[in-house]
Amino acid sequence: MIRDTGQVTTALRRTDLHASLSHPALQSMTFLNEVANRFPNAISFAPGRPYEESFDIEALHRYLRIFCDHLTHDLAYSEEQVCRTLFQYGRTKGIMHQLISRHLAVDEGIEVDPESIVVTVGCQEALFLVLRALRASEQDVLLAVSPTYVGLTGAARLLDMRVRTVRGGSVGVDIEDLITQIHDARAEGTRPRALYLVPDFSNPTGITLNTKVRRTLLQVAAEERLLLLEDNPYGLLRAKGRAQPTLKALDTQQRVLYFGSLAKTCFPGVRVGYVVADQRVQGSENADGLFADELSKIKSMVTVNTSPISQAVAAGKLLEHNGSLLRANAREIKVYRRNLIRLLNGLEARFASVPGVQWNTPSGGFFVVVTVPFSVDDTLLEHSARRYGVLWTPMNHFYNGDGGRQQLRLSCSLLTVDQIDEGLNRLAALFTEFIR
Amino acid sequence: MIRDTGQVTTALRRTDLHASLSHPALQSMTFLNEVANRFPNAISFAPGRPYEESFDIEALHRYLRIFCDHLTHDLAYSEEQVCRTLFQYGRTKGIMHQLISRHLAVDEGIEVDPESIVVTVGCQEALFLVLRALRASEQDVLLAVSPTYVGLTGAARLLDMRVRTVRGGSVGVDIEDLITQIHDARAEGTRPRALYLVPDFSNPTGITLNTKVRRTLLQVAAEERLLLLEDNPYGLLRAKGRAQPTLKALDTQQRVLYFGSLAKTCFPGVRVGYVVADQRVQGSENADGLFADELSKIKSMVTVNTSPISQAVAAGKLLEHNGSLLRANAREIKVYRRNLIRLLNGLEARFASVPGVQWNTPSGGFFVVVTVPFSVDDTLLEHSARRYGVLWTPMNHFYNGDGGRQQLRLSCSLLTVDQIDEGLNRLAALFTEFIR
Repeated sequence: MIRDTGQVTTALRRTDLHASLSHPALQSMTFLNEVANRFPNAISFAPGRPYEESFDIEALHRYLRIFCDHLTHDLAYSEEQVCRTLFQYGRTKGIMHQLISRHLAVDEGIEVDPESIVVTVGCQEALFLVLRALRASEQDVLLAVSPTYVGLTGAARLLDMRVRTVRGGSVGVDIEDLITQIHDARAEGTRPRALYLVPDFSNPTGITLNTKVRRTLLQVAAEERLLLLEDNPYGLLRAKGRAQPTLKALDTQQRVLYFGSLAKTCFPGVRVGYVVADQRVQGSENADGLFADELSKIKSMVTVNTSPISQAVAAGKLLEHNGSLLRANAREIKVYRRNLIRLLNGLEARFASVPGVQWNTPSGGFFVVVTVPFSVDDTLLEHSARRYGVLWTPMNHFYNGDGGRQQLRLSCSLLTVDQIDEGLNRLAALFTEFIR
Repeated sequence: MIRDTGQVTTALRRTDLHASLSHPALQSMTFLNEVANRFPNAISFAPGRPYEESFDIEALHRYLRIFCDHLTHDLAYSEEQVCRTLFQYGRTKGIMHQLISRHLAVDEGIEVDPESIVVTVGCQEALFLVLRALRASEQDVLLAVSPTYVGLTGAARLLDMRVRTVRGGSVGVDIEDLITQIHDARAEGTRPRALYLVPDFSNPTGITLNTKVRRTLLQVAAEERLLLLEDNPYGLLRAKGRAQPTLKALDTQQRVLYFGSLAKTCFPGVRVGYVVADQRVQGSENADGLFADELSKIKSMVTVNTSPISQAVAAGKLLEHNGSLLRANAREIKVYRRNLIRLLNGLEARFASVPGVQWNTPSGGFFVVVTVPFSVDDTLLEHSARRYGVLWTPMNHFYNGDGGRQQLRLSCSLLTVDQIDEGLNRLAALFTEFIR
């Protein structure tokens, strides 16, 4: 209790609140947003945000109308049923599962029962629900390819679930280290439940697993009875080369939980994601019910259901393009390709002959990792913003505070080519200051 | 692992998943929905769903336009900023906090800093975030007035947080039992963090606390250093008498966390709720930051933010009625009043002289509790649905499995007066079978 103008007011102590609130993963986003807000005029390679030029308010109205027409004409709903679908409480697993199932078949070669899909409030909720289900006791630990998406680490912290990192290495996941980590975890009396990874154009590294590594991973998962949590927000945003099959497309044994996001392929504000959970659960109310139905029960206590308004907008976009998000994003894919090539060429032009500066060459997605011969941290980021007007993300944010101390992540999704060029010039000036 | 057509498929065991999945609270909704789906033609006094006749697709388009106009004209946003607000990732605490703050001032006499409001995916997410923050260790327990909203119990189970019940009694909360429970909890080495209750037209009992009880409750909370979780989804839906001030309106010491829902006053599919969390947190990054900012960090790892599309729709409705949900719901309030009176009069007409049948007389909201001289459980509900075509909710669902075994909850929000009359006739036939 603290006294304030003579009146007793209630104060809570941080130490009396859940420990996750003091964890770097939960501080990370707050800090990065705060820096971005303080330097609104900086050129920002920081956020993994989609390109904004295709945002169009009238499209919202059109998507809503297309979805309502779909209910009326394709599903023969009465006007009353259409209204009820959009306004009333509804199906916890969502109302656009059929359309997502069709998209997965058309765009990803993934064939799944629509009943195994849980539509969620962004992919983040899907991750959270799955971790909640799998973390049955303190023994249950999660494996994650390092460096890792901060949202995964944060969700695990909220659930007091330990995350054990697996080296990513040059192919995206170091299989040998994976096996070592599984065995070490078991030797320590813990139970590794699943491995989290982003196989295509990973956040933060941009790396993509080749098909051979994917098949090996599925084999190891089967042998070690491990689930694979495949998160695929960027897979359709390919800049060059041929698509690798998703783990889920190769998964004949329901080893894979597939996480989809519409944040980049529809838009972030729609807050629609999903998880495919086609595993059977022994001992559920319905004999061998679907894991999706267990997740649905958890969801009913977190967000009840995903807004049917949001789902209607996302579904309208899908319907407008015959169920294909690849077609729906033809224009955006071109922009991202152009930007990624511009960024990679720009790095080459400026840093090819600078000793100690290296970067990887992703074939799609938003992210490139640059390694430099000096220390990279939040202080350097602030300096970079203040003195040079350029923002980026220190890679150590993705290492749970332990690693990536000479690396930075560049995202090129939100910029024009001119901004990319100018941003790289500013970055070059920063590098010059620190490379003597 | 189970064998299926010669191929090894993955199966999970329920016993390897989080224990909440086997808890009655999480089964409850599934069971009740399943019964409702099996008897679609029954007259249903079961769901606490809002009246559907005001649902109107064109209103969605209008609300969106009103909100965009508000951004353009009242806040002087450029077209680009309007698009970014609706489409891009955005403020974790939400974008309609100013409007909610105005509504609280206009309709509830609650004056709060908009910064202390976290807009959430329905009120359910708000409850979940607060319980996550408060449950720092196994010692932290929650108190809840019994019988309790199932969504509260379910959220607590997901977080392994023990719920200790406090008798509601005839005034809505038994202060003496509250003090006993607090002291007993402490004597057992646990730490009661907060008391959850619905002070106005409670779910499931319909009871409203009088102002004297409210003041006593605030005093006890201050003395015992307990937070009060005030959930108020029905407060504006008054049928008769004068409104009591909310606990939050009486709260001069930030003892109260106020939970708001737009499910009943806008519509459920909008999935917008919020929590007012104006407590100071000592030891936070920003010296004495708001509890709302801590909740925001948790939210960023559960759902990232609440869909700005949903918020735009809800905000449009608020703006259309100058920030007043009371005005926005003038028509609905009349319908609910009409229905509640019809239900109460109908009970009087049919059961006044039947020994052992009693009911309470709420002055608003959706719910009435009927006590009967026979056993009420899920089996009786199924029998009622099959033989008499009438649905309702067994009260024991709200007692954590222990209590309410001769009570049923009737909800009248979704019915016409003719359906109420016919439903009561069917209920009378059911009662007659069991009262010999």
